[in-house]
Amino acid sequence: MTLWALKLEYDGRGFVGWQRQVNGLSVQEVLEQAASRLCNGVVPASVIAGRTDAGVHAAAQVARIDLPDGLTARAVREALNFHMKPHPIVVLAVAPPPNADWNPRFSAIGRDYRYLILNRAARPALEAGLVWHVKQVLDADAMHRAAQSLLGRHDFTSFRAAACQAPSPLRTLDRLDVQRVGNRVIIDASARSFLHHQVRNMVGTLKLVGEGRWPETRVAAALAACDRSAAGPTAPPDGLTLMEVRYPRDPFGTQQ
Amino acid sequence: MTLWALKLEYDGRGFVGWQRQVNGLSVQEVLEQAASRLCNGVVPASVIAGRTDAGVHAAAQVARIDLPDGLTARAVREALNFHMKPHPIVVLAVAPPPNADWNPRFSAIGRDYRYLILNRAARPALEAGLVWHVKQVLDADAMHRAAQSLLGRHDFTSFRAAACQAPSPLRTLDRLDVQRVGNRVIIDASARSFLHHQVRNMVGTLKLVGEGRWPETRVAAALAACDRSAAGPTAPPDGLTLMEVRYPRDPFGTQQ
Repeated sequence: MTLWALKLEYDGRGFVGWQRQVNGLSVQEVLEQAASRLCNGVVPASVIAGRTDAGVHAAAQVARIDLPDGLTARAVREALNFHMKPHPIVVLAVAPPPNADWNPRFSAIGRDYRYLILNRAARPALEAGLVWHVKQVLDADAMHRAAQSLLGRHDFTSFRAAACQAPSPLRTLDRLDVQRVGNRVIIDASARSFLHHQVRNMVGTLKLVGEGRWPETRVAAALAACDRSAAGPTAPPDGLTLMEVRYPRDPFGTQQ
Repeated sequence: MTLWALKLEYDGRGFVGWQRQVNGLSVQEVLEQAASRLCNGVVPASVIAGRTDAGVHAAAQVARIDLPDGLTARAVREALNFHMKPHPIVVLAVAPPPNADWNPRFSAIGRDYRYLILNRAARPALEAGLVWHVKQVLDADAMHRAAQSLLGRHDFTSFRAAACQAPSPLRTLDRLDVQRVGNRVIIDASARSFLHHQVRNMVGTLKLVGEGRWPETRVAAALAACDRSAAGPTAPPDGLTLMEVRYPRDPFGTQQ
């Protein structure tokens, strides 16, 4: 068998998330079922960089999968894309892992997420399912200033889902930029890794600042409280997209 | 009754186009049925700036509709958006027409369309239905240069659908810009008005240049031939969006 690194794009609508679940179709199941067509029906196990929840999207998820020897990277890409039709999941790039013990999750040194808020009166038509629709005009500058108090290494218990399985609530947040572009508020978050729901909980909290319901300084206080109930609600999955997973050496080089 | 100008956004997937047809649901039918809820069930007639074909999208279509007196612009917007759920059609803005004889179609002085090509190996997942997927790498610079030969006032018979009902094939093309942004090729077209399928026929022709199958100069020759068979095929509707309709005075002012 040969190990391959895959870069995936998917629309999270209609899936129960990355991970296999009994209550619906997962991205993992579609990928592994497609891969089984290359493995005489045996379903190979895949490993990914970061599990995404139901409704969360990926522009560049990274996975590892074990396939029979003798295939080219191009053949793997085309065969998987063929067998994943018509599901909104595609393999963008395929490459040999950079080294034998490469693991898409543990070898990653950075993850970039983007959260999109459509900030206007009318619900989305062209971007339904891909944005969080917020009617009240948000002060993106205030959200950005408040966000800066979360940068650095902290105990992020206040922004962590109850179901989070990480052994430690300590994370280092490298970037949390909020900017307005027309009627969209764009939030870019980068870290080596995130806790479960961390981005959505930070966004749900910053929205309270953007609405003027919270003073900017309350975000730092919520962080310091180390108590989930001190922070704001969880933003919906629709607006969240995993944009990039970074490695010491990019397995995909210049591939699209 | 009171006349209102409406600005609409819609996702053309799943519709037979703007105009009512016997073979499926149209954008017009959804809008007029929603409006009938404000008119004691009587279906009011709407007029629009430019009919869109099946699968073509609008970020800012403009329509006119006659509704009972006594409603505010905000009430019209909210009521129509409520009654158009769950269809991917929304009213972005509502305003009184600039003058009594204002007509969204005949008063328009400019229309801007954008055509998006996703130029990569893998089919689209996040933007399925919103882009034309072209696998072969396109030379966007060559497409742009060739496009410039179509600017100005010409007989556009070569780029006109057989079903086009316009009395004259003469049109003045003000802008046809082609640019690459990452793995997308973006085509922006502006004119006072377009013939039926004109943008899609121009895009289908420029793609031949982008692939290197046509020399750049052949686009001018195709125009001069005044013969539909001299130009390239019609690009699919997916990538096309009506971006803006311009008037001597913008009815919507600064509304979103």
